[in-house]
Amino acid sequence: MTDNAFAQPAPSRPTPLTLLGTGAMGTALARAWLAAGHPVTVWNRTPARAAALAGQGATVAASAADAVAAGRLVITCLLDDASVGATLDGADLTGRDLVNLTTGTPEEGRDRAAWAEARGARFLDAGIMAVPPMIGAANSGAYVFYSGSAALFEEHRDTLAVPAGATYVGADPGFAALHDVALLSAMNGMFAGITHAFALIRRQDIAPKDFAPLLVSWLTAMAPMAHQAAERLDSGDYSTDVVSNLAMQVAGNTTLLRTAEEQGVSPELLTPYLALMERRLAAGHGDEDTTGLIDLLLTGR
Amino acid sequence: MTDNAFAQPAPSRPTPLTLLGTGAMGTALARAWLAAGHPVTVWNRTPARAAALAGQGATVAASAADAVAAGRLVITCLLDDASVGATLDGADLTGRDLVNLTTGTPEEGRDRAAWAEARGARFLDAGIMAVPPMIGAANSGAYVFYSGSAALFEEHRDTLAVPAGATYVGADPGFAALHDVALLSAMNGMFAGITHAFALIRRQDIAPKDFAPLLVSWLTAMAPMAHQAAERLDSGDYSTDVVSNLAMQVAGNTTLLRTAEEQGVSPELLTPYLALMERRLAAGHGDEDTTGLIDLLLTGR
Repeated sequence: MTDNAFAQPAPSRPTPLTLLGTGAMGTALARAWLAAGHPVTVWNRTPARAAALAGQGATVAASAADAVAAGRLVITCLLDDASVGATLDGADLTGRDLVNLTTGTPEEGRDRAAWAEARGARFLDAGIMAVPPMIGAANSGAYVFYSGSAALFEEHRDTLAVPAGATYVGADPGFAALHDVALLSAMNGMFAGITHAFALIRRQDIAPKDFAPLLVSWLTAMAPMAHQAAERLDSGDYSTDVVSNLAMQVAGNTTLLRTAEEQGVSPELLTPYLALMERRLAAGHGDEDTTGLIDLLLTGR
Repeated sequence: MTDNAFAQPAPSRPTPLTLLGTGAMGTALARAWLAAGHPVTVWNRTPARAAALAGQGATVAASAADAVAAGRLVITCLLDDASVGATLDGADLTGRDLVNLTTGTPEEGRDRAAWAEARGARFLDAGIMAVPPMIGAANSGAYVFYSGSAALFEEHRDTLAVPAGATYVGADPGFAALHDVALLSAMNGMFAGITHAFALIRRQDIAPKDFAPLLVSWLTAMAPMAHQAAERLDSGDYSTDVVSNLAMQVAGNTTLLRTAEEQGVSPELLTPYLALMERRLAAGHGDEDTTGLIDLLLTGR
């Protein structure tokens, strides 16, 4: 100890942690923590997959209960929420900090939080915005949504940020999964659009490698329209100018459908959004932009 | 004249042009060309809309045929392809350079090219990637796809580039519309995804303005996946690693659907793409990525 006010704090030793589940994602996480010097205890239902990490410095526990007993910070990365319950069934969670990186729905996150808290643990649910090769890689853009116990997140923030960026999105333990699923769903929509676009040019003398940069630039330029939708959701005013309102857009959609037909491309990825526009127009909202389609998805049937 | 080899060429006078159709887009185009010093002759079916441009220096022709007679470069920006045929029906197109900025399908572009060439004109079809407020604005990102006569494009490239960027995509007069429609279709897919994502958070205590930046960053980061699809289309090899193949993705899709159900959001914008994944998986392609869905849209029914 020193009374020098400018003394540096002693460098903290990397927090020990337990990781349950060493599939592709769990293994990538374990490697990132081991590489950063964290003592890691692992357990996996199929022991061979955990054993592979022993050579990289991990301690392999004989049971999930033993792994949980090894330290305070316990991370689950399992197949699904039911696996989390089954795996932790015989473990003593009292005083543990449980961080659940298992994919699930918001309701599963909330229920699992209540379940963990009833067993004496603090709980943080998570949604991983990455595939395993991005974990631990510099500048990969990988990050993880966390929600639930703010105290747990603050205490372990540095440890959690080792394999990928850590973004806390609220005390509601369902919010991490909700953010995760919302972004993945939006991505699927974009990929559906990309699929349709490539199908349109597929039978023509247009090189996919020449077309892709145009597609990427256009989607990147148009993605920020989401900010405008957010502003309109906040204001409740969906009206827009005549050149881009729903009435104009629905009229223009026939060109998209006729082109798909000309090119022999099934319109199945395109029609649901166009049909939603038509329903909103038919309900008398021709002077609005497409923000009202969000409400229609919630109330429309 | 001078024999000084370093003399500047006499500044060329801006090319005179005729513009048929002064709706919102035509008016924006006319203003951009007038502002750049081009003599512009306009005609519109509803004369009052053309007359408004007279105050800004445009010459208003009494008929479409008179407008076409006024100069060599003739630009159409009309309601639809049928309007182009009807408007030009009585005009002498011999020796004219016809640039068609009217929205249409690839087949309409090709048919209109043959029609114009049979009447003695060179022809360029176009697809405008912008809304009228972006026309003539600096750094708006607005551009126009052109296809058809390369000679016409080269001769008038500078004039065409005045209101918005000019991108030539091939001699096939259908390619401008095809590129236009493909990009707009992809954008609709992305907007469908954004619509679903906002619907998922709409009933939760999550501010749309906090959520939108996450959504925009994620979509912007994922859009370049289109490059990977292009490479796979070129190579014909759609196989991928086990962590991101179709079998894994289809298994993960249940979380997206259950979350939509929990949040009371109709899955109608999500299901067609997921169903296409399932069909491709059922056809024995579980070890591939999603590139094969493009082929399925072309051959699937």
